[in-house]
Amino acid sequence: MAKDWNAALYLKFEDERTRPSRDLLAQVPLEAPGLCVDLGCGPGNSTELLAERFPAAAVVGLDTSPDMLASARTRLPQAQFRQDDAATFTLERPADLLFANAVLQWVPDHASLFPRLLTQVAPGGVLAVQMPDNLDEPSHAAMRAAALDGPWSHKLAAAAAARTALPSVGTYYDLLAPDCARVEVWHTIYRHPLEGIPAIIEWVKGTGLRPFLDPLDAQERAGYLEAYAARLAPHYPRQVDGKVLLAFPRLFILARKKG
Amino acid sequence: MAKDWNAALYLKFEDERTRPSRDLLAQVPLEAPGLCVDLGCGPGNSTELLAERFPAAAVVGLDTSPDMLASARTRLPQAQFRQDDAATFTLERPADLLFANAVLQWVPDHASLFPRLLTQVAPGGVLAVQMPDNLDEPSHAAMRAAALDGPWSHKLAAAAAARTALPSVGTYYDLLAPDCARVEVWHTIYRHPLEGIPAIIEWVKGTGLRPFLDPLDAQERAGYLEAYAARLAPHYPRQVDGKVLLAFPRLFILARKKG
Repeated sequence: MAKDWNAALYLKFEDERTRPSRDLLAQVPLEAPGLCVDLGCGPGNSTELLAERFPAAAVVGLDTSPDMLASARTRLPQAQFRQDDAATFTLERPADLLFANAVLQWVPDHASLFPRLLTQVAPGGVLAVQMPDNLDEPSHAAMRAAALDGPWSHKLAAAAAARTALPSVGTYYDLLAPDCARVEVWHTIYRHPLEGIPAIIEWVKGTGLRPFLDPLDAQERAGYLEAYAARLAPHYPRQVDGKVLLAFPRLFILARKKG
Repeated sequence: MAKDWNAALYLKFEDERTRPSRDLLAQVPLEAPGLCVDLGCGPGNSTELLAERFPAAAVVGLDTSPDMLASARTRLPQAQFRQDDAATFTLERPADLLFANAVLQWVPDHASLFPRLLTQVAPGGVLAVQMPDNLDEPSHAAMRAAALDGPWSHKLAAAAAARTALPSVGTYYDLLAPDCARVEVWHTIYRHPLEGIPAIIEWVKGTGLRPFLDPLDAQERAGYLEAYAARLAPHYPRQVDGKVLLAFPRLFILARKKG
């Protein structure tokens, strides 16, 4: 598997993956922002939502992945896309909407990150964030358990540390409230009906499973995936229609900077 | 306290209470439904959302409370409002959208209720449900704990049984999937920033606390509220701006009947 993000695999579950962006954007209380920045824009599906909702705005997408950026430019020629890193970027002028969907979970040290993000937002502007908060779900606990229990364990010791659990809701609130007129924080736990355990694995292959597969050779990968599937099975019983329900908790943060 | 619902108190937190209706309605995939029924319409705030989204539809609100219905008729003269019970109602013709926001948690036996609700939905129509799922939250566990520990305990023995925990997500999915083209089930855990413990008590006085206050005389009520507040305090620390965050989980169900 290439180190770069695979846009085609990511887009395989596009409807489901785009819903959190839509749900986040639906809460943004802006009428006509001048500059909208989509941080970690991926293949541009979230950027497209911003452009549709705010047709008069300048829309800029940032991402670290050339593959994702190429896909985004094809999808949305009227927007600007630039290679940059959510951990270190600065904008030429502050954004009226800084939109960060499913990216900041990969950036460490949120106690420093979130106040710095607010410095990139204009007065009266909005910081809108969504992050998967699923490390305690069986789908992710089983990745770590299978990693520790097999001949591949020495190669995967670091993988489980690639992401750490998110800070508490109260921590985010306290980081943002002093500079904001309003801070809203909520979780949504989606349940995606999928076609059995193999579909769950396909889903996470596009994101959370990558650090566990990248270090392995083909034979180890097959063994690891088999062990992972066996650990998933008891947690995802078949429903009456043969599907399984993948629970997927996501954390949403919407902060309106003081005017 | 009157046994009837108090529309003024319920509307005190109107913005926060209306957001779940808005979030539910945002997911309804209908273009132009003919008949929209708002089951348990309360004072008409959810009914108003239906009328705004679907201006060409016939909109009907049902509720058991005369006080709520009077308030709803004043708010929305163009809709029809009728006194009826979510547990037993039948419609003259099936609804294209049957919308039930924050009402079905009061109706027992969901294994019978949900299939019956689907019989009131037209082919291709949508059943859209939102219910508080907060009985395990400190805000509600403390109601029961305070009820059992005081001179009022004999009067409140029945109160904790007024609502039972909701069935699992998988149970709802299985009840609906056989007759539906698509079933979506999700939780959202809102966090409402409120002005301290007294504001939490004001919030729940409009709904979940009512069965605990109704059986008590004035002196018992004061004692019970004091005991309740003391049990809440450790779970709701003050944030940096002096507010507390009331976590409020809600269950959403959206089922599209086969066409």
